[in-house]
Amino acid sequence: MSTTTPRSRLAPDERRTQLLDLGVRLLATRSVEELSVELLAEEAGISRGLLYHYFGGKHAFHEAVVRRAADELIARTAPPPAGDPVERLLISMAAYVDYVVENYEGYLSLVKGASSGNAALRSIHDEVRRALTDRIFDEDQSGLVPDTPGTRLVVRGWSAMVEEAALTWAAGDDGIPRDALVVSLAQSLQALVDVAP
Amino acid sequence: MSTTTPRSRLAPDERRTQLLDLGVRLLATRSVEELSVELLAEEAGISRGLLYHYFGGKHAFHEAVVRRAADELIARTAPPPAGDPVERLLISMAAYVDYVVENYEGYLSLVKGASSGNAALRSIHDEVRRALTDRIFDEDQSGLVPDTPGTRLVVRGWSAMVEEAALTWAAGDDGIPRDALVVSLAQSLQALVDVAP
Repeated sequence: MSTTTPRSRLAPDERRTQLLDLGVRLLATRSVEELSVELLAEEAGISRGLLYHYFGGKHAFHEAVVRRAADELIARTAPPPAGDPVERLLISMAAYVDYVVENYEGYLSLVKGASSGNAALRSIHDEVRRALTDRIFDEDQSGLVPDTPGTRLVVRGWSAMVEEAALTWAAGDDGIPRDALVVSLAQSLQALVDVAP
Repeated sequence: MSTTTPRSRLAPDERRTQLLDLGVRLLATRSVEELSVELLAEEAGISRGLLYHYFGGKHAFHEAVVRRAADELIARTAPPPAGDPVERLLISMAAYVDYVVENYEGYLSLVKGASSGNAALRSIHDEVRRALTDRIFDEDQSGLVPDTPGTRLVVRGWSAMVEEAALTWAAGDDGIPRDALVVSLAQSLQALVDVAP
């Protein structure tokens, strides 16, 4: 929106979306637990009461922000609609690694289930995993991985490996270049499929 | 102990160990949350008060049982002290898969961090992961995987993959034979090292 547009002109849905986007930006450098209604209210310059109006309780607020962050992750890591399957996987892995670096704290807290038994957050994490792995078996990706019980299991394991490796790499300082990591993550899918049960 | 030995003859340490073993057995088919002092007291035929005497509070009780379960996992999956590295890895993977099947509920709850923000349980899970992956780089395993930043990252990712694949396989009914899974998990280490960054 233009800076001259008064806040009151925004429809409630637009305002909620704007607040969610701000929440997602704040979550990038914070764990889910550290992200609070108080902080968002302060950053947005509005009252906590109004935020509760938009989001309900604390859990609903966390869930809405994490869900939007997850949607963003899924959208950003979508492979191009056409092209060489290996090339498309490389592009998707590169986007994933960059997302993890840019949103390290919030993403780590989602993955580690540090969400204190919040079943909604766990289910969002499952959705992200599923979205990323189901893509491998989408018909437009066919040719990369045959669809068998063994490769389904391998791809699921691969997604856990990619997550762990990207988070470990982003947290550390082991001198591995970003591009070398991306290529390795992409190649590891084929390597694992070759030894699938 | 012999069934004719009165309970009072046991030293406090032995009694505590006996109760921990019972807790580990109960945990096999229950999540950490479902395992309670009340249940253990009932199964052991002693008072809750005595259990609190042995374990302190609820968190300390959970932590003690999970730690013993983790020690058991690490011991059971230890590879033989000598022999062909590939063969030793196969034996270790077979023991791991069998452990996951036999202790599915308790192990799943540990891995999923369903422990409601209990940092002690998360740290035990980290210890298990580290014990299993550090073995790969033990000097007696040398020859299997060269020790570089890239292979360290790959082995860490591989451990997450093995965990996810074994839990998924144990929960499902996809027709993949146990031995095929074990071979695939062992071979996947070499396959991933071959494409390490």
